[in-house]
Amino acid sequence: MPNAFTISRRVQFSETDMAGVMHFSNYFRWMEETEHAFFRSLGLSIVQPHEGGTLSWPRVRVSCEYFGPVHFEDEVEMRMVLTDVGEKSATYEMTFSFEGKRVARGRIKMVCCLMKDGMFSSIPIPSFLRPLLEDSQHESHHPGRKPED
Amino acid sequence: MPNAFTISRRVQFSETDMAGVMHFSNYFRWMEETEHAFFRSLGLSIVQPHEGGTLSWPRVRVSCEYFGPVHFEDEVEMRMVLTDVGEKSATYEMTFSFEGKRVARGRIKMVCCLMKDGMFSSIPIPSFLRPLLEDSQHESHHPGRKPED
Amino acid sequence: MPNAFTISRRVQFSETDMAGVMHFSNYFRWMEETEHAFFRSLGLSIVQPHEGGTLSWPRVRVSCEYFGPVHFEDEVEMRMVLTDVGEKSATYEMTFSFEGKRVARGRIKMVCCLMKDGMFSSIPIPSFLRPLLEDSQHESHHPGRKPED
Amino acid sequence: MPNAFTISRRVQFSETDMAGVMHFSNYFRWMEETEHAFFRSLGLSIVQPHEGGTLSWPRVRVSCEYFGPVHFEDEVEMRMVLTDVGEKSATYEMTFSFEGKRVARGRIKMVCCLMKDGMFSSIPIPSFLRPLLEDSQHESHHPGRKPED
Repeated sequence: MPNAFTISRRVQFSETDMAGVMHFSNYFRWMEETEHAFFRSLGLSIVQPHEGGTLSWPRVRVSCEYFGPVHFEDEVEMRMVLTDVGEKSATYEMTFSFEGKRVARGRIKMVCCLMKDGMFSSIPIPSFLRPLLEDSQHESHHPGRKPED
Repeated sequence: MPNAFTISRRVQFSETDMAGVMHFSNYFRWMEETEHAFFRSLGLSIVQPHEGGTLSWPRVRVSCEYFGPVHFEDEVEMRMVLTDVGEKSATYEMTFSFEGKRVARGRIKMVCCLMKDGMFSSIPIPSFLRPLLEDSQHESHHPGRKPED
Repeated sequence: MPNAFTISRRVQFSETDMAGVMHFSNYFRWMEETEHAFFRSLGLSIVQPHEGGTLSWPRVRVSCEYFGPVHFEDEVEMRMVLTDVGEKSATYEMTFSFEGKRVARGRIKMVCCLMKDGMFSSIPIPSFLRPLLEDSQHESHHPGRKPED
Repeated sequence: MPNAFTISRRVQFSETDMAGVMHFSNYFRWMEETEHAFFRSLGLSIVQPHEGGTLSWPRVRVSCEYFGPVHFEDEVEMRMVLTDVGEKSATYEMTFSFEGKRVARGRIKMVCCLMKDGMFSSIPIPSFLRPLLEDSQHESHHPGRKPED
């Protein structure tokens, strides 16, 4: 069963629009904030020096479904699950809930890149990072641990 | 063949991030800006008084694929095509190009709502609006014109 | 001596720009977030139903000085002091610090308004709110307490 | 008499907040957009390679006064005047107008820096740039032209 990483966050005034609700584009910023908090929870930063450049994770495909609005000062819970760790890419899903009710669900696929002199080249996920991501993806697959642990 | 509505727009400094490229969330703001310019091109505003409330178009599902980055001051072309006009919803696709090369493609499905006292209720697309949207969707269906025109 | 209200907050990736630092406009969003957290600390919301409308605090004059940049993931402390509570307006100052060093200082003057049917009219700060603000402004003026307390 | 550089721009939906008006922080983004358009009008970019690094203009002090709100789809005119060109800094003022009425006035003081390896050092405004800025500041001081020209 996949691990979930969860944080919560309040809707800020500047994130609302004239319809009185959070603007739909901000959910993507929230997903990224949660993703970066997840990296910090592993003792890492999403921005990591690597082989003379910087690791960077450009987005390949992102999406979000909205089931209902959230309003100023609502405290929204985000639950992130890494659903796929490929050779050069990773995908996660995010569930947004307010007062126990799911209000949105998003997904981000990102590719591992080395950024050097302003250029991005995709690279295999480095070996210091892969096991941390795979562990987060499927706790039950942790080497040496059995599913019933 | 569908009609396209096209505008272009320059990447602003505040839209870039520390990776030196436009932040991925801003593509959704750009799609919405183009959508609203499209409504203005029909002589309408996306925010329209209607039956004692206001017409509003909450987003149901949005997505974007990224094929390459855009940078500060790049002049990016957005080409919007209405791909579906349903009873209560509409969907459009947006192609982002820079120097003739496609850099991203997005899609937004939105639902027609009446907003009253801060509440949203989905309603059928009003009759003053439907023909304008349908015409934009399929030029070849324009009354009195034939596909080969 | 004035009371200070303090919170801290991490610089998010989407808040940086291509110069690799937090974009200068975001300091104003952060000031407002702190202000609203301050209102919540008083058991209030900045958006408050009042006399058939809503209390609202449009900004009259805002400013910020920058002493040095802040970067992605920096944990920045904001210290807010209400420096003036007038008949219809209030002013606060915000000091931004990172690792004990002051990096910016801002100031916001806002006016108390009743918002009704989309129109703003300035009104005297309501009596339920004034003592809470004045107390926050000058702890030493707290009724029943003396400056040397 | 100072030269003015003028552009206009429509308030976008994502720039409004739940009070139904443009969020006050966005005026600073608009000022910067106008400043960068001004640099382009001189045949320059605000981001300019220089002596092995990049010219950059961190903000030292910014302010804005608000005289009235602007709303979604309002077409706002911004009029920028360079009021001071110092040895290492420059200051401009921006007047925001809607339908001929002044709605806001801002000011930005920025310092000329060389950015190298992520560090900013202030430098004298380079000689290729200074005359262009000084000309924009005071048309009447243009060498070889007289005030009455």
